[in-house]
Amino acid sequence: MRKRIDARDYNQLRPVSIRTGFNLYAESSVEISWGNTLVHVTASVEDRVPAFLKGTGKGWLTAEYNMLPRATHSRNQREGRGNRSLGGRTQEIQRLIGRSLRAVTDLYLLPERSIIIDCDVLQADGGTRTASITAAWLALVLASNHLIEEGVIARTPVLEQLAAVSVGVLNGRPILDMSYQEDSAAQVDMNVIMTGAQDFVEIQGTGEESTFSLNQLKEMLALAQAGLAEIFDLQLQVLKENGINWGK
Amino acid sequence: MRKRIDARDYNQLRPVSIRTGFNLYAESSVEISWGNTLVHVTASVEDRVPAFLKGTGKGWLTAEYNMLPRATHSRNQREGRGNRSLGGRTQEIQRLIGRSLRAVTDLYLLPERSIIIDCDVLQADGGTRTASITAAWLALVLASNHLIEEGVIARTPVLEQLAAVSVGVLNGRPILDMSYQEDSAAQVDMNVIMTGAQDFVEIQGTGEESTFSLNQLKEMLALAQAGLAEIFDLQLQVLKENGINWGK
Amino acid sequence: MRKRIDARDYNQLRPVSIRTGFNLYAESSVEISWGNTLVHVTASVEDRVPAFLKGTGKGWLTAEYNMLPRATHSRNQREGRGNRSLGGRTQEIQRLIGRSLRAVTDLYLLPERSIIIDCDVLQADGGTRTASITAAWLALVLASNHLIEEGVIARTPVLEQLAAVSVGVLNGRPILDMSYQEDSAAQVDMNVIMTGAQDFVEIQGTGEESTFSLNQLKEMLALAQAGLAEIFDLQLQVLKENGINWGK
Amino acid sequence: MRKRIDARDYNQLRPVSIRTGFNLYAESSVEISWGNTLVHVTASVEDRVPAFLKGTGKGWLTAEYNMLPRATHSRNQREGRGNRSLGGRTQEIQRLIGRSLRAVTDLYLLPERSIIIDCDVLQADGGTRTASITAAWLALVLASNHLIEEGVIARTPVLEQLAAVSVGVLNGRPILDMSYQEDSAAQVDMNVIMTGAQDFVEIQGTGEESTFSLNQLKEMLALAQAGLAEIFDLQLQVLKENGINWGK
Amino acid sequence: MRKRIDARDYNQLRPVSIRTGFNLYAESSVEISWGNTLVHVTASVEDRVPAFLKGTGKGWLTAEYNMLPRATHSRNQREGRGNRSLGGRTQEIQRLIGRSLRAVTDLYLLPERSIIIDCDVLQADGGTRTASITAAWLALVLASNHLIEEGVIARTPVLEQLAAVSVGVLNGRPILDMSYQEDSAAQVDMNVIMTGAQDFVEIQGTGEESTFSLNQLKEMLALAQAGLAEIFDLQLQVLKENGINWGK
Amino acid sequence: MRKRIDARDYNQLRPVSIRTGFNLYAESSVEISWGNTLVHVTASVEDRVPAFLKGTGKGWLTAEYNMLPRATHSRNQREGRGNRSLGGRTQEIQRLIGRSLRAVTDLYLLPERSIIIDCDVLQADGGTRTASITAAWLALVLASNHLIEEGVIARTPVLEQLAAVSVGVLNGRPILDMSYQEDSAAQVDMNVIMTGAQDFVEIQGTGEESTFSLNQLKEMLALAQAGLAEIFDLQLQVLKENGINWGK
Repeated sequence: MRKRIDARDYNQLRPVSIRTGFNLYAESSVEISWGNTLVHVTASVEDRVPAFLKGTGKGWLTAEYNMLPRATHSRNQREGRGNRSLGGRTQEIQRLIGRSLRAVTDLYLLPERSIIIDCDVLQADGGTRTASITAAWLALVLASNHLIEEGVIARTPVLEQLAAVSVGVLNGRPILDMSYQEDSAAQVDMNVIMTGAQDFVEIQGTGEESTFSLNQLKEMLALAQAGLAEIFDLQLQVLKENGINWGK
Repeated sequence: MRKRIDARDYNQLRPVSIRTGFNLYAESSVEISWGNTLVHVTASVEDRVPAFLKGTGKGWLTAEYNMLPRATHSRNQREGRGNRSLGGRTQEIQRLIGRSLRAVTDLYLLPERSIIIDCDVLQADGGTRTASITAAWLALVLASNHLIEEGVIARTPVLEQLAAVSVGVLNGRPILDMSYQEDSAAQVDMNVIMTGAQDFVEIQGTGEESTFSLNQLKEMLALAQAGLAEIFDLQLQVLKENGINWGK
Repeated sequence: MRKRIDARDYNQLRPVSIRTGFNLYAESSVEISWGNTLVHVTASVEDRVPAFLKGTGKGWLTAEYNMLPRATHSRNQREGRGNRSLGGRTQEIQRLIGRSLRAVTDLYLLPERSIIIDCDVLQADGGTRTASITAAWLALVLASNHLIEEGVIARTPVLEQLAAVSVGVLNGRPILDMSYQEDSAAQVDMNVIMTGAQDFVEIQGTGEESTFSLNQLKEMLALAQAGLAEIFDLQLQVLKENGINWGK
Repeated sequence: MRKRIDARDYNQLRPVSIRTGFNLYAESSVEISWGNTLVHVTASVEDRVPAFLKGTGKGWLTAEYNMLPRATHSRNQREGRGNRSLGGRTQEIQRLIGRSLRAVTDLYLLPERSIIIDCDVLQADGGTRTASITAAWLALVLASNHLIEEGVIARTPVLEQLAAVSVGVLNGRPILDMSYQEDSAAQVDMNVIMTGAQDFVEIQGTGEESTFSLNQLKEMLALAQAGLAEIFDLQLQVLKENGINWGK
Repeated sequence: MRKRIDARDYNQLRPVSIRTGFNLYAESSVEISWGNTLVHVTASVEDRVPAFLKGTGKGWLTAEYNMLPRATHSRNQREGRGNRSLGGRTQEIQRLIGRSLRAVTDLYLLPERSIIIDCDVLQADGGTRTASITAAWLALVLASNHLIEEGVIARTPVLEQLAAVSVGVLNGRPILDMSYQEDSAAQVDMNVIMTGAQDFVEIQGTGEESTFSLNQLKEMLALAQAGLAEIFDLQLQVLKENGINWGK
Repeated sequence: MRKRIDARDYNQLRPVSIRTGFNLYAESSVEISWGNTLVHVTASVEDRVPAFLKGTGKGWLTAEYNMLPRATHSRNQREGRGNRSLGGRTQEIQRLIGRSLRAVTDLYLLPERSIIIDCDVLQADGGTRTASITAAWLALVLASNHLIEEGVIARTPVLEQLAAVSVGVLNGRPILDMSYQEDSAAQVDMNVIMTGAQDFVEIQGTGEESTFSLNQLKEMLALAQAGLAEIFDLQLQVLKENGINWGK
């Protein structure tokens, strides 16, 4: 098989690096650089919950997703300004991020607190939602740790490790971690969100004016699983640098 | 295994029936009754395309989804009125319907025309998005046929048959076609959209505050495949009653 | 005088039929078919009242009106989506429906409860607001009866029978119950809302780029009165089929 | 019969006075003082028409209605600010004003021009919509005259004289021209819009949690007709002071 | 130096006159005519404060600013209607008015009360924000006096006199009180808001596609100071006519 | 005098550093770190102008300003989402940035092109608008240089150097460059925007529930002038590192 545009192998991730703790005010901050995609993530803790949760003993956990206007090749108008309302794509992504995080969190261990994860894409080159989820999980663990250190909660509400990666089919061939250019030409685009225990939290596979077979689906899932193993390691290393031995 | 709430077997669909041609004005109209879910679908043809397609030779195909306020157990406020804006869930669903239909349509065979599919849920008991897609595909074929009869286009732009069904995991057991009550208690909710040729157009599987294994995924896909075979037959029969022998 | 487009006499109603009780969840549901106009009506009871009524001992009764996009000859954009806000015509009609219903209701007999009547027009061929009012009154009586059966209230808050019909002047001649095609060509359009006791609740007569004389007004009112007698009978029959002997 | 709150007879108008020509920029300006109701009206001419009229040879005529926040006993929030959108009542009134004016105007005599009538209520004590219509008609005639003097059009597009008044039923007794206090207690509120030739342009009669008989309707219409005779005289006098002999 | 367009000297104000007490309902009303600029101001007192002030012992004071559509040479669309949202310029001005008034008011002397000052520009010929501030201060004093007379508060919360004037640089020459025509051609536009004690509350100087030197700044401030001395006298005279001896 | 909270002298700037060229797509990108304030700025060039400039030969230059939700001590809701519309403060700031840049730009030297400067505040500790202007001017020069290199324009449309700084009065003492904590306690807050030639482009001085004298104004302006000299040097150095010798 021919090499990919950026000379990667079909099962190879782009370089991923993560830095944390740069924001002066947030309960935690994580910046993830994944190929040319760059996402700025903060976690904010508030000591109240939405009305529908009051008195239930549960906390709340949600996410917001946003692209800066020039995160993309040509400038995009800001959503929520002028005649441009909040887009369906943006809402879909932030609902996905929040739902995925909640799937690995016990909100009863976060009583009367809300954690809001803000994912702002500074630069977009494909995979912004999977990079956001991967960084958001770190921000969630770090903010929870902050609450433990402050004595607000006794143990972390985060039950499992969580990360996400994209896979796809390009020129009939399943590949791992597509860049924007690959994504634009792909027949299938799929996001896989898994736990550290190798269970699925969410899979979303979409034929882009195309369809895919059961075999292609299985190959894509295998690629995702292998790629996520590397990402899980990176997350654990970042936590270690922050003094947290996850899973020990 | 215990029977399900409504005495169905784990691999059994609810009763599905379809009527067509009831709307006086629309290029086509389809009402699908799927268990207690009832969706009213019309297709509207317009002889213009959105600005971004002008002069490209391509047509356009899109969908809108809406729930009537009392489609549900308790009344929901109408979106787009008062302080309630168009919800993320609604946008997500109508984007899914439109994307799925476009995946099996050659828009170059619909030059300078737009087809808008309106899916209005009159009663909701689970599976409204999959019922909408199943009926919307029929409305698309019928409206295309109308354009052929009018001499506007020479052949149908619809390339493949399309239908959708939900599957899930309830009490650890994969099941087909969940009602609202089952959905509320399920660990996993998954929508499978396939072509008549048994390829996937889209799969969306979500752990509801839970996760799922690769084996469960495979079982759910097998259930969906079997259930969709019945739905495909029903669609063909409806087309036959409308004088269309699909695939012949 | 020449017969009308659809061969009706000047003082003849279009065929009207009504079905009830089809919605699984609503406290009552009524579908009215009036010529080619088709309106789907549900009543929803909520056990709270708006802030301005709290502690007054009064209940609340209101209506919402909406047209499905393809209720009309060519598709209309949905209000409250994209750049299209809720239209003045829609607000005017739903205010009229609510006001008319409240004119024959004693809200003190509905303490701390709200009834919301949703009128969704599935197909429009003139007279959608008068058909809505006629069906909405039935939905109100049926929902009130439901509350009596549930032991929530002791007797119906509905004081009088209510129905509505349109009249107009076409080619200088007053006629009863205009279709959309007649309405488009009419010089005068008038909606008459009356009680079973032959009193007016509301009259709205509008010269459409035209004016009308006092004599024409009187003739239109007489036509409306005669037409409404038939509608009142139909309403009573529908109630009887639902086990209610109104006015006995 | 007892005198009314302000010692008027049942068939007596409140004092009405009108001044014109005070705005430096508008094509015409009219301020009407009707009892304690005060409405500021301007007409603006634009040399374009809305998209749906382009190339039809017709001009356009529309109205906007607005209340200043402290036109009323207690302050009202401005519509279109914060969470308060443009109200149904406001839209209903401005649609009525525009429709009434268009009923007496030949828009083909105003080719490729739009006239926008702005009615801003500075103080409200009942009858703001009828005062607005009465003043708006004057503003329309004066602005049309301005266009004649400028050589833009050859003759006035205004075909007939137009004015409006409210009537009602209070304590069972039909009365002319209700103040806010009377209106609040009235059983029936009715707006009558007539031409100088004594034809109706629009009538809107509403039972306020009440109903009315055919006899009461006839009495109200007679009161309105008599009251409008005085208003028509006042309008003609104002036009004469502006150098216009209407109807001569 | 050449005389100005309207024959004024460079340091000469346009004629200013003020009338009060014309609104039937408002706690105070002030109309200021400043050259051809005309602003209608009312003060409304409400016996509640915004949520963020509840229980603090402080009252609230805010302002809203609005232009009628035909206050200007050509008609402006109303903000908050159709696709036109509340403009940045409008918000900037009303924030300025409110902030300036609060700078001379002790909100602790207005416990649990809000004063809302509405400034509606009926005609605009430059200087609408400075005219609004000048009139708004009078409305504030008069409304406070009303509260004293009602026994609600013991003494006025207004600590100092406040007025505003515009200055600018036109053809390189600093001038006082620019009309709209001068403002359009000016190199610099500056608003100066001062207390009766000759201190600054706010200065806003803007180069209009131009810049200005420190010397020009000083000359403009001197012009403003001299002009405001006349305005302060006028304000005191208006208060005296209302029975208030300010500063005595 | 006592040292300031962060041990600075009254006339001392916080540390300022600037990096450029980090964004892959934008025509220029500038990040300014000013004390703990951090602003991310990009310039985007588009080859069209707004409708009101078409055919005039002029280009367009505008700015947008935004704060990330956790740029501040506690999280702020995003503007333009949910019920939160674009705030008056945000509009005021972005209007100021755009106006200031246009004051030193000849838009006729940018024919048929638009430059949009996006200023996104990643962290806010006072002075976000002055930091934005200072960085925006660099982004403007760099983007203009890009257009020269591309052969789109022959010479820079930027006529003069531009930077901004805040000054204020705290505890009665004029000081330079206030942090958020100082700003919160200050009696006066003033933003000074100057050209490299020491002329003013804009000054905005505001008494915060306080007032200020002419002497204090003069002292603040002198502090600003001295501080800006350092900032101008830094800007020139950044340009030099980008291969541009400004003013030579």
